[in-house]
Amino acid sequence: MKLILASQSPRRVELLGRITTDFVAIPAQGEEQVSPGTPPRETAGLLALQKAQEVAAEHPGALVIGSDTVVDFNGHRLGKPRDRQDARQMLQCLSGASHWVHTGCALVQGERVERFVSSTQVTFYPLTPEEIDAYLDTGEPFDKAGAYGIQGQGALLVKEIQGDYYTVVGFPLAQVARILRQWGKISKEKNSQI
Amino acid sequence: MKLILASQSPRRVELLGRITTDFVAIPAQGEEQVSPGTPPRETAGLLALQKAQEVAAEHPGALVIGSDTVVDFNGHRLGKPRDRQDARQMLQCLSGASHWVHTGCALVQGERVERFVSSTQVTFYPLTPEEIDAYLDTGEPFDKAGAYGIQGQGALLVKEIQGDYYTVVGFPLAQVARILRQWGKISKEKNSQI
Repeated sequence: MKLILASQSPRRVELLGRITTDFVAIPAQGEEQVSPGTPPRETAGLLALQKAQEVAAEHPGALVIGSDTVVDFNGHRLGKPRDRQDARQMLQCLSGASHWVHTGCALVQGERVERFVSSTQVTFYPLTPEEIDAYLDTGEPFDKAGAYGIQGQGALLVKEIQGDYYTVVGFPLAQVARILRQWGKISKEKNSQI
Repeated sequence: MKLILASQSPRRVELLGRITTDFVAIPAQGEEQVSPGTPPRETAGLLALQKAQEVAAEHPGALVIGSDTVVDFNGHRLGKPRDRQDARQMLQCLSGASHWVHTGCALVQGERVERFVSSTQVTFYPLTPEEIDAYLDTGEPFDKAGAYGIQGQGALLVKEIQGDYYTVVGFPLAQVARILRQWGKISKEKNSQI
Protein backbone atom coordinates (compact mmCIF):
# COMPACT_ATOMS: atom_id res chain seq x y z
CA MET A 1 0.00 0.00 0.00
CA LYS A 2 1.36 3.36 -1.02
CA LEU A 3 0.72 6.32 1.30
CA ILE A 4 0.87 9.80 -0.19
CA LEU A 5 0.75 13.12 1.63
CA ALA A 6 -0.72 15.60 -0.85
CA SER A 7 1.38 18.44 0.53
CA GLN A 8 4.99 19.54 0.59
CA SER A 9 4.63 21.62 3.73
CA PRO A 10 7.71 20.76 5.84
CA ARG A 11 5.53 20.96 8.94
CA ARG A 12 3.05 18.37 7.63
CA VAL A 13 5.86 16.12 6.41
CA GLU A 14 7.51 16.23 9.84
CA LEU A 15 4.24 15.53 11.64
CA LEU A 16 3.12 12.60 9.47
CA GLY A 17 6.69 11.33 9.84
CA ARG A 18 6.04 10.84 13.54
CA ILE A 19 3.62 8.00 12.78
CA THR A 20 5.18 6.48 9.68
CA THR A 21 8.20 7.07 7.50
CA ASP A 22 6.66 4.99 4.73
CA PHE A 23 5.08 7.74 2.63
CA VAL A 24 5.86 10.20 -0.13
CA ALA A 25 4.92 13.88 -0.37
CA ILE A 26 3.29 14.83 -3.69
CA PRO A 27 1.59 18.22 -3.63
CA ALA A 28 -1.60 18.90 -5.55
CA GLN A 29 -1.10 21.42 -8.36
CA GLY A 30 -4.67 22.43 -9.10
CA GLU A 31 -6.23 25.79 -8.47
CA GLU A 32 -8.43 26.19 -5.44
CA GLN A 33 -12.07 25.77 -6.34
CA VAL A 34 -14.28 27.19 -3.66
CA SER A 35 -17.33 29.35 -4.29
CA PRO A 36 -17.09 32.90 -2.99
CA GLY A 37 -18.85 33.22 0.34
CA THR A 38 -18.05 29.67 1.49
CA PRO A 39 -17.49 29.82 5.26
CA PRO A 40 -13.86 29.34 6.35
CA ARG A 41 -14.44 26.05 8.17
CA GLU A 42 -16.17 24.53 5.17
CA THR A 43 -13.44 25.91 2.90
CA ALA A 44 -10.76 24.00 4.84
CA GLY A 45 -12.68 20.74 4.39
CA LEU A 46 -13.35 21.30 0.67
CA LEU A 47 -9.75 22.24 -0.16
CA ALA A 48 -8.38 19.23 1.74
CA LEU A 49 -10.70 16.98 -0.26
CA GLN A 50 -9.80 18.64 -3.59
CA LYS A 51 -6.08 18.16 -2.92
CA ALA A 52 -6.51 14.52 -1.91
CA GLN A 53 -8.78 13.68 -4.85
CA GLU A 54 -6.52 15.35 -7.40
CA VAL A 55 -3.48 13.37 -6.29
CA ALA A 56 -5.53 10.16 -5.83
CA ALA A 57 -6.73 10.40 -9.43
CA GLU A 58 -3.11 10.32 -10.59
CA HIS A 59 -2.15 7.46 -8.25
CA PRO A 60 -4.87 4.80 -8.34
CA GLY A 61 -4.69 2.41 -5.40
CA ALA A 62 -2.72 4.78 -3.20
CA LEU A 63 -4.06 6.13 0.06
CA VAL A 64 -3.81 9.91 -0.19
CA ILE A 65 -4.03 12.40 2.67
CA GLY A 66 -4.96 15.96 1.78
CA SER A 67 -4.88 18.77 4.29
CA ASP A 68 -5.64 22.47 4.24
CA THR A 69 -5.46 25.12 6.93
CA VAL A 70 -7.62 28.23 7.02
CA VAL A 71 -7.33 31.10 9.47
CA ASP A 72 -10.74 32.52 10.32
CA PHE A 73 -11.07 35.98 11.84
CA ASN A 74 -14.74 36.75 12.51
CA GLY A 75 -15.81 34.63 9.56
CA HIS A 76 -13.24 36.15 7.17
CA ARG A 77 -10.53 33.94 5.76
CA LEU A 78 -6.97 35.21 6.21
CA GLY A 79 -4.71 33.73 3.57
CA LYS A 80 -0.97 34.07 3.11
CA PRO A 81 0.00 37.75 3.17
CA ARG A 82 0.78 39.37 -0.18
CA ASP A 83 3.49 41.60 1.28
CA ARG A 84 4.79 43.19 4.47
CA GLN A 85 1.95 45.70 4.68
CA ASP A 86 -0.65 42.96 4.26
CA ALA A 87 1.07 40.85 6.94
CA ARG A 88 1.13 43.84 9.30
CA GLN A 89 -2.61 44.39 8.81
CA MET A 90 -3.36 40.74 9.55
CA LEU A 91 -1.31 40.79 12.74
CA GLN A 92 -3.02 44.04 13.80
CA CYS A 93 -6.37 42.30 13.29
CA LEU A 94 -5.34 39.29 15.36
CA SER A 95 -3.72 41.38 18.14
CA GLY A 96 -5.50 41.12 21.50
CA ALA A 97 -8.29 39.00 20.04
CA SER A 98 -9.34 35.42 19.40
CA HIS A 99 -9.60 33.72 16.02
CA TRP A 100 -10.11 30.22 14.72
CA VAL A 101 -7.74 27.96 12.84
CA HIS A 102 -9.51 25.23 10.86
CA THR A 103 -7.50 22.37 9.41
CA GLY A 104 -9.35 20.06 7.07
CA CYS A 105 -8.09 16.57 6.34
CA ALA A 106 -9.30 14.12 3.72
CA LEU A 107 -8.17 10.50 3.39
CA VAL A 108 -8.97 9.07 -0.02
CA GLN A 109 -8.32 5.58 -1.36
CA GLY A 110 -10.35 4.60 -4.41
CA GLU A 111 -13.99 5.04 -3.47
CA ARG A 112 -13.23 5.23 0.21
CA VAL A 113 -13.23 8.75 1.60
CA GLU A 114 -13.07 10.00 5.16
CA ARG A 115 -12.74 13.62 6.08
CA PHE A 116 -12.99 15.92 9.02
CA VAL A 117 -12.23 19.49 9.99
CA SER A 118 -10.51 20.22 13.28
CA SER A 119 -10.95 23.73 14.70
CA THR A 120 -8.87 25.38 17.40
CA GLN A 121 -9.40 28.80 18.92
CA VAL A 122 -6.26 30.93 19.28
CA THR A 123 -6.00 34.07 21.44
CA PHE A 124 -3.23 36.59 20.77
CA TYR A 125 -1.64 38.93 23.28
CA PRO A 126 -2.20 42.61 22.52
CA LEU A 127 0.77 43.42 20.26
CA THR A 128 2.61 46.73 20.08
CA PRO A 129 3.62 48.09 16.65
CA GLU A 130 7.24 47.34 17.68
CA GLU A 131 6.40 43.71 18.39
CA ILE A 132 4.65 43.37 15.07
CA ASP A 133 7.61 44.91 13.25
CA ALA A 134 10.06 42.67 15.09
CA TYR A 135 8.03 39.64 14.06
CA LEU A 136 7.81 40.81 10.44
CA ASP A 137 11.60 41.15 10.49
CA THR A 138 11.95 37.42 11.17
CA GLY A 139 10.50 36.74 7.71
CA GLU A 140 8.34 34.02 9.24
CA PRO A 141 4.89 35.47 8.41
CA PHE A 142 5.17 35.49 4.64
CA ASP A 143 4.47 31.87 3.76
CA LYS A 144 1.83 31.37 6.44
CA ALA A 145 -1.94 31.80 6.45
CA GLY A 146 -2.81 34.51 8.95
CA ALA A 147 0.81 35.74 8.85
CA TYR A 148 2.10 33.73 11.81
CA GLY A 149 3.44 30.31 12.73
CA ILE A 150 2.71 29.13 16.27
CA GLN A 151 5.58 26.62 16.14
CA GLY A 152 8.22 29.28 15.54
CA GLN A 153 8.75 32.83 16.75
CA GLY A 154 4.98 33.24 16.45
CA ALA A 155 4.86 31.41 19.79
CA LEU A 156 5.62 34.78 21.38
CA LEU A 157 2.36 36.25 20.08
CA VAL A 158 -0.01 33.59 21.39
CA LYS A 159 -1.60 33.85 24.82
CA GLU A 160 -3.59 30.64 24.74
CA ILE A 161 -5.32 28.12 22.55
CA GLN A 162 -8.38 25.97 23.00
CA GLY A 163 -8.34 22.76 21.00
CA ASP A 164 -5.67 20.72 19.26
CA TYR A 165 -2.27 22.41 19.01
CA TYR A 166 -1.23 20.56 15.85
CA THR A 167 -4.36 21.82 14.09
CA VAL A 168 -2.82 25.29 14.40
CA VAL A 169 0.53 24.00 13.11
CA GLY A 170 -1.42 22.62 10.13
CA PHE A 171 -1.88 18.87 10.62
CA PRO A 172 -4.14 17.28 13.28
CA LEU A 173 -1.77 14.39 13.80
CA ALA A 174 -3.61 12.49 16.52
CA GLN A 175 -6.88 12.36 14.57
CA VAL A 176 -5.14 11.28 11.36
CA ALA A 177 -3.29 8.54 13.27
CA ARG A 178 -6.61 7.29 14.67
CA ILE A 179 -8.18 7.06 11.22
CA LEU A 180 -5.13 5.31 9.74
CA ARG A 181 -5.32 2.79 12.58
CA GLN A 182 -9.06 2.24 12.01
CA TRP A 183 -8.40 1.67 8.33
CA GLY A 184 -5.74 -0.85 9.31
CA LYS A 185 -3.10 1.24 7.55
CA ILE A 186 -0.72 1.26 10.45
CA SER A 187 0.31 -2.30 11.20
CA LYS A 188 0.60 -3.38 14.81
CA GLU A 189 4.29 -3.71 14.27
CA LYS A 190 4.62 -0.16 13.03
CA ASN A 191 2.24 0.96 15.72
CA SER A 192 4.71 -0.25 18.29
CA GLN A 193 7.20 2.20 16.85
CA ILE A 194 4.86 5.09 17.52
CA MET B 1 24.31 41.36 32.24
CA LYS B 2 24.55 37.61 32.53
CA LEU B 3 21.41 35.57 31.90
CA ILE B 4 21.24 32.09 33.41
CA LEU B 5 18.61 29.42 32.81
CA ALA B 6 18.56 27.31 35.99
CA SER B 7 17.73 24.17 34.03
CA GLN B 8 19.40 21.80 31.62
CA SER B 9 16.17 20.59 30.07
CA PRO B 10 16.81 20.56 26.30
CA ARG B 11 13.22 21.73 25.76
CA ARG B 12 13.70 24.80 28.00
CA VAL B 13 17.08 25.57 26.44
CA GLU B 14 15.56 25.42 22.94
CA LEU B 15 12.61 27.62 23.92
CA LEU B 16 14.62 30.34 25.70
CA GLY B 17 16.96 30.19 22.69
CA ARG B 18 14.12 31.51 20.56
CA ILE B 19 14.31 34.88 22.31
CA THR B 20 18.01 35.15 23.05
CA THR B 21 21.12 33.08 22.49
CA ASP B 22 22.99 35.10 25.10
CA PHE B 23 22.50 32.83 28.14
CA VAL B 24 24.00 29.83 29.88
CA ALA B 25 22.22 26.81 31.35
CA ILE B 26 23.24 26.01 34.94
CA PRO B 27 20.89 23.58 36.68
CA ALA B 28 20.12 23.84 40.38
CA GLN B 29 21.45 20.90 42.35
CA GLY B 30 19.47 21.20 45.58
CA GLU B 31 16.82 18.83 46.85
CA GLU B 32 13.21 19.85 46.39
CA GLN B 33 11.88 21.45 49.55
CA VAL B 34 8.12 21.44 49.51
CA SER B 35 5.94 20.55 52.49
CA PRO B 36 3.81 17.45 52.03
CA GLY B 37 0.28 18.40 51.07
CA THR B 38 1.28 21.51 49.11
CA PRO B 39 -1.13 21.81 46.17
CA PRO B 40 0.44 21.05 42.75
CA ARG B 41 0.06 24.57 41.36
CA GLU B 42 1.74 26.10 44.39
CA THR B 43 4.44 23.43 44.23
CA ALA B 44 5.38 24.46 40.67
CA GLY B 45 5.80 28.07 41.80
CA LEU B 46 7.83 27.19 44.91
CA LEU B 47 10.19 24.85 43.07
CA ALA B 48 10.80 27.37 40.29
CA LEU B 49 11.71 29.95 42.92
CA GLN B 50 13.97 27.55 44.82
CA LYS B 51 15.88 26.67 41.65
CA ALA B 52 16.30 30.31 40.64
CA GLN B 53 17.37 31.44 44.12
CA GLU B 54 19.87 28.63 44.53
CA VAL B 55 21.62 29.46 41.27
CA ALA B 56 21.32 33.22 41.86
CA ALA B 57 23.08 32.85 45.23
CA GLU B 58 26.06 31.36 43.43
CA HIS B 59 26.07 33.99 40.66
CA PRO B 60 25.52 37.42 42.20
CA GLY B 61 24.46 40.03 39.67
CA ALA B 62 23.16 37.50 37.17
CA LEU B 63 19.53 37.34 36.12
CA VAL B 64 18.43 33.78 36.78
CA ILE B 65 15.32 32.09 35.39
CA GLY B 66 14.05 29.03 37.26
CA SER B 67 11.23 26.88 35.98
CA ASP B 68 9.40 23.80 37.19
CA THR B 69 6.59 21.79 35.67
CA VAL B 70 4.07 19.79 37.68
CA VAL B 71 1.40 17.49 36.27
CA ASP B 72 -1.75 17.64 38.37
CA PHE B 73 -4.34 14.88 38.16
CA ASN B 74 -7.27 15.70 40.42
CA GLY B 75 -5.00 17.53 42.84
CA HIS B 76 -2.37 14.77 42.91
CA ARG B 77 1.08 15.51 41.58
CA LEU B 78 2.38 13.08 38.96
CA GLY B 79 6.17 13.11 38.91
CA LYS B 80 8.56 11.29 36.59
CA PRO B 81 7.68 7.60 36.48
CA ARG B 82 9.90 5.24 38.52
CA ASP B 83 9.64 2.45 35.97
CA ARG B 84 7.53 1.06 33.13
CA GLN B 85 4.75 -0.13 35.42
CA ASP B 86 4.54 3.29 37.08
CA ALA B 87 4.46 5.02 33.69
CA ARG B 88 1.68 2.66 32.55
CA GLN B 89 -0.38 3.51 35.62
CA MET B 90 0.04 7.24 35.04
CA LEU B 91 -1.05 6.95 31.41
CA GLN B 92 -4.05 4.83 32.45
CA CYS B 93 -5.01 7.60 34.88
CA LEU B 94 -4.72 10.31 32.23
CA SER B 95 -6.55 8.27 29.54
CA GLY B 96 -9.89 9.74 28.47
CA ALA B 97 -9.68 12.48 31.09
CA SER B 98 -8.48 16.02 31.67
CA HIS B 99 -5.60 17.08 33.87
CA TRP B 100 -3.63 20.26 34.52
CA VAL B 101 -0.04 21.09 33.74
CA HIS B 102 1.36 23.90 35.88
CA THR B 103 4.68 25.49 34.97
CA GLY B 104 6.13 27.87 37.49
CA CYS B 105 8.72 30.46 36.49
CA ALA B 106 10.80 32.68 38.71
CA LEU B 107 13.07 35.49 37.53
CA VAL B 108 15.59 36.53 40.17
CA GLN B 109 18.24 39.22 40.03
CA GLY B 110 19.59 40.34 43.39
CA GLU B 111 16.61 41.50 45.42
CA ARG B 112 14.36 41.67 42.40
CA VAL B 113 12.03 38.72 42.05
CA GLU B 114 9.12 38.11 39.72
CA ARG B 115 7.28 34.86 39.47
CA PHE B 116 4.15 33.35 38.02
CA VAL B 117 2.55 30.01 37.44
CA SER B 118 0.96 29.24 34.09
CA SER B 119 -1.65 26.46 34.03
CA THR B 120 -2.97 24.63 30.99
CA GLN B 121 -5.66 21.98 30.92
CA VAL B 122 -4.89 18.91 28.80
CA THR B 123 -7.45 16.33 27.69
CA PHE B 124 -6.31 12.87 26.59
CA TYR B 125 -8.04 10.57 24.14
CA PRO B 126 -9.23 7.30 25.68
CA LEU B 127 -6.17 5.05 25.26
CA THR B 128 -6.21 1.31 24.63
CA PRO B 129 -3.68 -0.89 26.48
CA GLU B 130 -1.98 -1.42 23.08
CA GLU B 131 -1.61 2.32 22.55
CA ILE B 132 -0.15 2.73 26.02
CA ASP B 133 2.31 -0.11 25.42
CA ALA B 134 3.30 1.32 22.04
CA TYR B 135 3.98 4.67 23.68
CA LEU B 136 5.98 3.08 26.51
CA ASP B 137 8.08 1.34 23.83
CA THR B 138 9.20 4.71 22.49
CA GLY B 139 11.07 5.30 25.76
CA GLU B 140 9.74 8.83 25.78
CA PRO B 141 7.73 8.69 29.05
CA PHE B 142 10.58 7.93 31.44
CA ASP B 143 12.15 11.34 31.92
CA LYS B 144 8.87 13.25 31.87
CA ALA B 145 6.48 14.29 34.62
CA GLY B 146 3.15 12.57 34.02
CA ALA B 147 4.90 10.07 31.71
CA TYR B 148 4.33 11.93 28.43
CA GLY B 149 5.75 14.69 26.27
CA ILE B 150 3.25 16.64 24.17
CA GLN B 151 5.99 17.81 21.80
CA GLY B 152 6.97 14.27 20.77
CA GLN B 153 5.06 11.05 20.16
CA GLY B 154 2.89 12.05 23.11
CA ALA B 155 1.15 14.35 20.62
CA LEU B 156 -0.83 11.25 19.57
CA LEU B 157 -2.40 10.93 23.02
CA VAL B 158 -3.70 14.48 23.37
CA LYS B 159 -7.19 15.43 22.18
CA GLU B 160 -7.07 19.09 23.13
CA ILE B 161 -5.58 21.67 25.41
CA GLN B 162 -6.88 24.86 26.94
CA GLY B 163 -4.22 27.43 27.72
CA ASP B 164 -0.62 27.98 26.66
CA TYR B 165 0.92 25.10 24.71
CA TYR B 166 4.48 25.84 25.80
CA THR B 167 3.41 25.59 29.43
CA VAL B 168 2.78 21.91 28.72
CA VAL B 169 6.16 21.59 27.00
CA GLY B 170 7.66 23.07 30.18
CA PHE B 171 8.47 26.73 29.54
CA PRO B 172 5.84 29.50 29.06
CA LEU B 173 7.97 31.31 26.53
CA ALA B 174 5.66 34.20 25.66
CA GLN B 175 5.17 35.22 29.30
CA VAL B 176 8.89 34.99 30.05
CA ALA B 177 9.67 37.12 26.98
CA ARG B 178 7.19 39.74 28.18
CA ILE B 179 8.81 39.96 31.61
CA LEU B 180 12.32 40.15 30.14
CA ARG B 181 11.16 42.99 27.94
CA GLN B 182 9.54 44.82 30.89
CA TRP B 183 12.79 44.44 32.81
CA GLY B 184 14.62 45.88 29.81
CA LYS B 185 16.64 42.69 29.52
CA ILE B 186 15.98 42.24 25.84
CA SER B 187 17.45 45.20 24.02
CA LYS B 188 15.49 46.73 21.14
CA GLU B 189 18.16 45.50 18.83
CA LYS B 190 17.83 41.93 20.06
CA ASN B 191 14.11 42.35 20.09
CA SER B 192 14.18 42.94 16.39
CA GLN B 193 15.73 39.51 16.01
CA ILE B 194 12.76 37.87 17.68
